[in-house]
Amino acid sequence: MTRTIVASATKETIIGFDQPFCVIGERINPTGRKILNQELEDGDFSRVEADAIAQVAAGATILDVNSGAVFSGKMATDARYADNNFVEPILMQQLIEHVQAVTDCPLCIDSSVPGALENGLKTAKGRPLLNSVTGEEERLEMVLPLVKKYDVPVVAISNDDTGISEDPEVRFAVAKKIVERAADFGIPAHDIVVDPLVMPIGAMATAGHQVFTLVRRLREELGVNTTCGASNISFGLPNRHGINNAFLPMAYAAGMTSAIMNPVALPVGPKKIAEKRALVEAAGIILPEMDDETFVKMFGMGSTKPRPGKEMEAIRAANFLLNQDDGGAAWINFNKDPDAAAAGGRGRREGRRSRR
Amino acid sequence: MTRTIVASATKETIIGFDQPFCVIGERINPTGRKILNQELEDGDFSRVEADAIAQVAAGATILDVNSGAVFSGKMATDARYADNNFVEPILMQQLIEHVQAVTDCPLCIDSSVPGALENGLKTAKGRPLLNSVTGEEERLEMVLPLVKKYDVPVVAISNDDTGISEDPEVRFAVAKKIVERAADFGIPAHDIVVDPLVMPIGAMATAGHQVFTLVRRLREELGVNTTCGASNISFGLPNRHGINNAFLPMAYAAGMTSAIMNPVALPVGPKKIAEKRALVEAAGIILPEMDDETFVKMFGMGSTKPRPGKEMEAIRAANFLLNQDDGGAAWINFNKDPDAAAAGGRGRREGRRSRR
Repeated sequence: MTRTIVASATKETIIGFDQPFCVIGERINPTGRKILNQELEDGDFSRVEADAIAQVAAGATILDVNSGAVFSGKMATDARYADNNFVEPILMQQLIEHVQAVTDCPLCIDSSVPGALENGLKTAKGRPLLNSVTGEEERLEMVLPLVKKYDVPVVAISNDDTGISEDPEVRFAVAKKIVERAADFGIPAHDIVVDPLVMPIGAMATAGHQVFTLVRRLREELGVNTTCGASNISFGLPNRHGINNAFLPMAYAAGMTSAIMNPVALPVGPKKIAEKRALVEAAGIILPEMDDETFVKMFGMGSTKPRPGKEMEAIRAANFLLNQDDGGAAWINFNKDPDAAAAGGRGRREGRRSRR
Repeated sequence: MTRTIVASATKETIIGFDQPFCVIGERINPTGRKILNQELEDGDFSRVEADAIAQVAAGATILDVNSGAVFSGKMATDARYADNNFVEPILMQQLIEHVQAVTDCPLCIDSSVPGALENGLKTAKGRPLLNSVTGEEERLEMVLPLVKKYDVPVVAISNDDTGISEDPEVRFAVAKKIVERAADFGIPAHDIVVDPLVMPIGAMATAGHQVFTLVRRLREELGVNTTCGASNISFGLPNRHGINNAFLPMAYAAGMTSAIMNPVALPVGPKKIAEKRALVEAAGIILPEMDDETFVKMFGMGSTKPRPGKEMEAIRAANFLLNQDDGGAAWINFNKDPDAAAAGGRGRREGRRSRR
């Protein structure tokens, strides 16, 4: 039974064939998050802390911490900020300190900058997951010694110096090469979590089949745990949650043991609330004074607070279905939480007949 | 490639390894539906017709027609009505006539009464699916000759004279026996759709694993299509939709090719509307005159009209993920329909970054 141990100072998360699916929260990442990026440039880590807390509350058991910020303001006055090798190591340290201050959830150190990875390894308590090594020669030679030196597990992404192959055979071969190279460094296969790379299903009709087949082979032939950037599967499509909700249980059933994903249903924001209030007024409805949370609940919009997303419901159901939730205690508990139930829809417990 | 052809007078549905998942609508069934049962006793088939139309609109490609009514009123004055062999053959004929009058969707004739099966076979146009034969000697000897005589496909349920085994090996053996016995009658394996029997996950922690393993074996070793009463998996649990939504894509990924299920999200009924109106009033909200459908939409309750259920969203996503929806045309179309989107939640199409 392959088990990858990831740990904080006080808490252990096991990624493994005999474990519930491991949710690696992806939110602490300034890439594509303009407001967060600006806050980090201003030295404001309040959103990072809130994101850490919300993701753990929603069910993440590892938190990814990505330092890929671009500080364009500082760059204008200080040329050093144009270099990620300058920005990221400091930022990674700060991010991890802030996250560790509010949660004991084990961490995943995520950067393409060697200095940021090493600073992350120095700052993170326990046994963090390193994200990532690829099959590129330069990355192998740079990351694997860090993995060995700090005795940590590592995410291995199956692309190499030729790029990302659309051929799953090539991606399998790259993963195999990384596992073999790691072995040369004395790193065991159970400390490698392979990301077989998920292509968007809208662009490649076989993307689902590819992942499911690759995951099964990686598990059976290499004995490694697997992960993926789950939401890539639905890139560019309408109703992305609908695709993701089906993809995650299918990938899990094929043998995938973790995913880097957003466990949180984003709260209803001020803009949507203002739009709905205008609609309500236009319909001739007269409201008493009503705070936003009461308003949002009354009009069936969800919540102004973060809640577990639909993907978390799918994963918890899949845990139950794959015998990783004995007696369904976690499922029943998840559906007792009124916020979770509001996000997921509370079905009737009784009343429906069994077909036979 | 195993293909089971089911047809009406004008329309063909193929259950097969290379086909989109086949949804067999389960709603036309008086078992456990008191109001429908009473209507049928009174000779009122309006709900049957409405259910037929709604299920096809939601995405069912076969409609199950079950005649298992109990006419307690008539029974009191005419003892013949205590015998299902008297009630069901007539009722099956009426049900099929009414369903065929409003839709050209292929049918599944569902009864435990031999006379009802034969009357169904006489009444249904095209090539209906017969539901069902089991491994019980009496059923084999009774149903298989009908299957042969009318040249139709049949659902084979994997229980026998010893009952339903909790051991999946036994259930596989029963299925194998039925396939072999059918062969003796000259019935090919591609005309047998095996139901491996889904146990409730709340009562048996290995129920999911059992189904996924059985489906794969049935497909690989016997070359047969498969089906199941999908909602059995969540029997007795809270938030049954959440379990079903994960189960269906997982079973499909394991190789299941159809399911007997409810494709329709039940509309919001008068009782829920009255409760919400009371809540709204108690909160001091003053409403103008507002019809129920407008009210329900305004307060985010769904719709008073039947819409595709969440399970249909899961299946359509899974079709896409298993390369049965080239380019995602069906997915995109499904999510354009405002009612479908309201049921499933319309995600953002753009804006989210790809992780890598």
